[in-house]
Amino acid sequence: MRTSIATVSLSGPLTEKLTAAARAGFDGVEIFENDLLTSPLTPEEIRTRCADLGLTIDLYQPMRDIEAVPDEEFARNLRRAEHKFRLMRRLGTDTVLVCSSVSPNAVDDDALAAAQLRQLADLASEYDIRVAYEALAWGRHVNTYDHAWRIVEAADHPALGLCLDSFHILARGSDPKAIEDIPGEKIYFLQLADAPQLAMDVLQWSRHYRCFPGQGGLDVAGFLGHVIRAGYDGPLSLEIFNDVFRQADAATTAVDALRSLLVLQESTGVHASPAPVVPTGVAFAELVTTDVEPTAELLTALGFIRTGRHHGKPVDLWEQGEARILVNTGPAARRDGTVLAALGLESPDPAAAAQRAEALLAPVLPRRRTPGDVPLSSVAAPDGTALFFCATRRPELPSWTEDFEPTGQEFDPSGQEADGHGIHHIDHLALTQPWHQFDEATLFHRGVLGLDAQDSVDVADPYGLFRSRAVSTADGSVRIALGVGPGPGDDLGRPQHIALACDDLVTTARRFCEAGGHLLPIPANYYEDLAARYGLPEEEWSVYRKLGILYDRDAYGTLRHCYTRTVGRVFFELVQRDGGYRGYGAPNAPVRLAAQRAVAF
Amino acid sequence: MRTSIATVSLSGPLTEKLTAAARAGFDGVEIFENDLLTSPLTPEEIRTRCADLGLTIDLYQPMRDIEAVPDEEFARNLRRAEHKFRLMRRLGTDTVLVCSSVSPNAVDDDALAAAQLRQLADLASEYDIRVAYEALAWGRHVNTYDHAWRIVEAADHPALGLCLDSFHILARGSDPKAIEDIPGEKIYFLQLADAPQLAMDVLQWSRHYRCFPGQGGLDVAGFLGHVIRAGYDGPLSLEIFNDVFRQADAATTAVDALRSLLVLQESTGVHASPAPVVPTGVAFAELVTTDVEPTAELLTALGFIRTGRHHGKPVDLWEQGEARILVNTGPAARRDGTVLAALGLESPDPAAAAQRAEALLAPVLPRRRTPGDVPLSSVAAPDGTALFFCATRRPELPSWTEDFEPTGQEFDPSGQEADGHGIHHIDHLALTQPWHQFDEATLFHRGVLGLDAQDSVDVADPYGLFRSRAVSTADGSVRIALGVGPGPGDDLGRPQHIALACDDLVTTARRFCEAGGHLLPIPANYYEDLAARYGLPEEEWSVYRKLGILYDRDAYGTLRHCYTRTVGRVFFELVQRDGGYRGYGAPNAPVRLAAQRAVAF
Repeated sequence: MRTSIATVSLSGPLTEKLTAAARAGFDGVEIFENDLLTSPLTPEEIRTRCADLGLTIDLYQPMRDIEAVPDEEFARNLRRAEHKFRLMRRLGTDTVLVCSSVSPNAVDDDALAAAQLRQLADLASEYDIRVAYEALAWGRHVNTYDHAWRIVEAADHPALGLCLDSFHILARGSDPKAIEDIPGEKIYFLQLADAPQLAMDVLQWSRHYRCFPGQGGLDVAGFLGHVIRAGYDGPLSLEIFNDVFRQADAATTAVDALRSLLVLQESTGVHASPAPVVPTGVAFAELVTTDVEPTAELLTALGFIRTGRHHGKPVDLWEQGEARILVNTGPAARRDGTVLAALGLESPDPAAAAQRAEALLAPVLPRRRTPGDVPLSSVAAPDGTALFFCATRRPELPSWTEDFEPTGQEFDPSGQEADGHGIHHIDHLALTQPWHQFDEATLFHRGVLGLDAQDSVDVADPYGLFRSRAVSTADGSVRIALGVGPGPGDDLGRPQHIALACDDLVTTARRFCEAGGHLLPIPANYYEDLAARYGLPEEEWSVYRKLGILYDRDAYGTLRHCYTRTVGRVFFELVQRDGGYRGYGAPNAPVRLAAQRAVAF
Repeated sequence: MRTSIATVSLSGPLTEKLTAAARAGFDGVEIFENDLLTSPLTPEEIRTRCADLGLTIDLYQPMRDIEAVPDEEFARNLRRAEHKFRLMRRLGTDTVLVCSSVSPNAVDDDALAAAQLRQLADLASEYDIRVAYEALAWGRHVNTYDHAWRIVEAADHPALGLCLDSFHILARGSDPKAIEDIPGEKIYFLQLADAPQLAMDVLQWSRHYRCFPGQGGLDVAGFLGHVIRAGYDGPLSLEIFNDVFRQADAATTAVDALRSLLVLQESTGVHASPAPVVPTGVAFAELVTTDVEPTAELLTALGFIRTGRHHGKPVDLWEQGEARILVNTGPAARRDGTVLAALGLESPDPAAAAQRAEALLAPVLPRRRTPGDVPLSSVAAPDGTALFFCATRRPELPSWTEDFEPTGQEFDPSGQEADGHGIHHIDHLALTQPWHQFDEATLFHRGVLGLDAQDSVDVADPYGLFRSRAVSTADGSVRIALGVGPGPGDDLGRPQHIALACDDLVTTARRFCEAGGHLLPIPANYYEDLAARYGLPEEEWSVYRKLGILYDRDAYGTLRHCYTRTVGRVFFELVQRDGGYRGYGAPNAPVRLAAQRAVAF
């Protein structure tokens, strides 16, 4: 279906919004009145600009407080409307949004509303304009779509129809099923918005917290299904009032927006992208650094062995069990120290995974290949992390590991831990997201990689609240904790981390310390509370205390975890999950964050 | 009364919080459990630190989900509680907060709740500890103070009393009057918090939006009156969960916090500060600049005349009617261009105004006096603006203008506008506030200066939502619009502005342009909308369009206004208020902001 976006959903002056919408690949836009009023371009110039960009103007919006008012006021409203109809002719758009009245002067009289809307539609017809009437969730008398439809039906005018907005309908808890009983040709326009589930005043909720479909908690896909079954074939348009998007870069937001419509159409069965290829594990994590020494020292203490060296690039492969870390000192290395720059995701079908990502507008990364390199495609996640789709040492496909020449060091092939410290794979990755792109990141990982998103949790840092939201495969083979700081600008210096799984944390932690590693010291007060809270025996928690091991329980099992020092912008976590524990130790995060602030070690 | 603050109200690690509370002048603190858990200090060390800082530990909090649970669970709860009682002895605090249970296992059985709380109090007595039971607004079965009191009364134990929290009581809309029927000695603790009036889930409201008394919309003063009449004589303690304060500097927040308690005690009649001395006008606005030329050029075009030069400092006085601008090229001048650094407020009693400000913790600014200077005291507003308390050319008091030596240029003493452009006074000042201190700024201007605060309004800038809140005297003789950007860091470069009042804006604006001034150009689309919206005749709006004059109406009258170019970080607005218009042209602000973004002129 055609795609459209309201200019209010993007930041910047009108021309910047239009450019961003066109570049992302939208077919059209809704012109939001304030964006026109603040633009130095005349309506004719805006029309030309849109045409040049390949955008249609699908809607002009909004007209407010038109109907169900005393005669004299309605006469004034008609005069005002005629001004706008003339303006719309100059813009070259033929549909106007009329919101149900919120005026204190509006009366609760459907017949009057219908009669006046009929008059408005009559006037609109003279200008070849259609009127799309929308029930605002907080409309004074008309605030449900079925009520708006009764009025439109009663008015019975060929230039009067409905605008349906998923937020207004779903936020009130209306059942969208009866939309199917509305003739499709009377649904003039469809606005799509999601929103997180918040118990708050619906107007404030709408004005500040709307988000793109799939980023919130409303069933926008189910809603769209009803609208399509009604026979609607107009554009799918996004009208998003969001305090964060207002500050974000319009070009980025526009891509996020269009991706949300692709995923939405797929889940409604309207449009098929290449099927998602869900990853089955983490093939590697890649650190980029200008100085390999601190990282090498840390990896060695963790029990990793440098098993390979890339045949054509300054990249080392470190291994322990199925946990693999690449250390890259190539041109991408930056002065601000070691960063987590890339992830390899184990993929059942790397080529199909890359096609899926590209179809969902993930930026395909150019790869500096050296002769003989195994083909490996990668895309950029919203935070800039490169995602590689890998097949590691599988007989049927080339493996990226073939690019590495063995150093001669390797683990005991019997699989015993003789040469390691008991670490067997990467449990999860914790990636700090740019503040403006947290919702985009969640949708990206769900849509592009087929991961499931858990609920967002708040975590208290000494200097603000963090939010964290995990995305993972159903079996936990890939887990990524997306984090975001309390405000824009607070994200840049935040460390990322790599969590490594083991079966016996006390042993692994001890070996790490014996090998010269240092674990983050945790305050004694924490352990006394642990004793009080869980009744852990002293012989158990005193061991944890000595090592700095944290402890958590959920409905499924227990977590033991501890942290290494931070190298550049990266640190490691060691985790032992038992009994199917599903979380990430969020209750302990404030303790960890405070300890990291307190100690340079 | 004694003052206290919960450590959760301040940012940073525990020791930073304690230092900030002590420096601001608090008598005590509530220790929030998480702050203890994350601290490397032992309980004994925390006790010593508090004693060294002159702080008592008035409360340990919270204990949760204790009461009205099955026997086995309660036995576990008692063991947990005993751990905490021992901890409290080491901390040296004797009161613990027990929140009403939110556990899914809690049963709706007041007798059981009372019996178990009695047992808890028995155990607490062994440690000389008192239990303060508090009804959380979202408690599972107990969520009102009167219900909590019935349970405490039924338990009838000398170590069991109530904790009252203004938020939990007022947010639910409970009538606080019946507090007076509770024996004062059974109110063990009082927590005070305000909050903006938000229609939202009460738990989220409490956890993110609490603010200091006087910064929100709850009647905390009325509430406190009831508690005092009940006979409570414990500390007034602030327990504020606020996402902004979590990120703000603890020392600044602590001063804001204590100021809120001073103002609160004053409005409840518990404690008297020196009475507020409400200013009666703006004596001057002071610009500081390294390069006087662009400012002088702009002031000249506006019709100002340089009437005086300070006898000992590089400061010029520019006048037109009662509008006075100081231009200072002294040591405070910074490379980033002209800034609005100080305001002179016309005060009926400058000395008393300064005493009031100092009593309310406004930082008194050291003044670089030159010999013979008229005494003039000043304090710093939260945004750093210096506020001078002035008596301008009043016979009974020395006038700051006496420090200026006449240049010989002056306006026609007959008061005619022959030498000016019709500007007669400073209408208002628009000051961008540091993002973390917006609530503080409002309380400061209300408390210290006795101004009234209007509601906050949202204004769309092309790159985010602004908030603006006006503070003013009842007669409008002093008006300050406090503004804040969409996020931290976005405030620094924002321009401030000085709005100048005239009676005939078209004439004043024309004279400004004739004198070489440039007004901010406003898009033509705005004027077409004006015609449609207000039915303004074309001969009127076409004049506005040529000049760049904006137009607004409120319930009282009309506003016409326009803007000069920005010099450094300052621009001027010209305003004509008619018929008692009370606002600041907020509906036009998005147009102005977009125009300022679009045009370098």
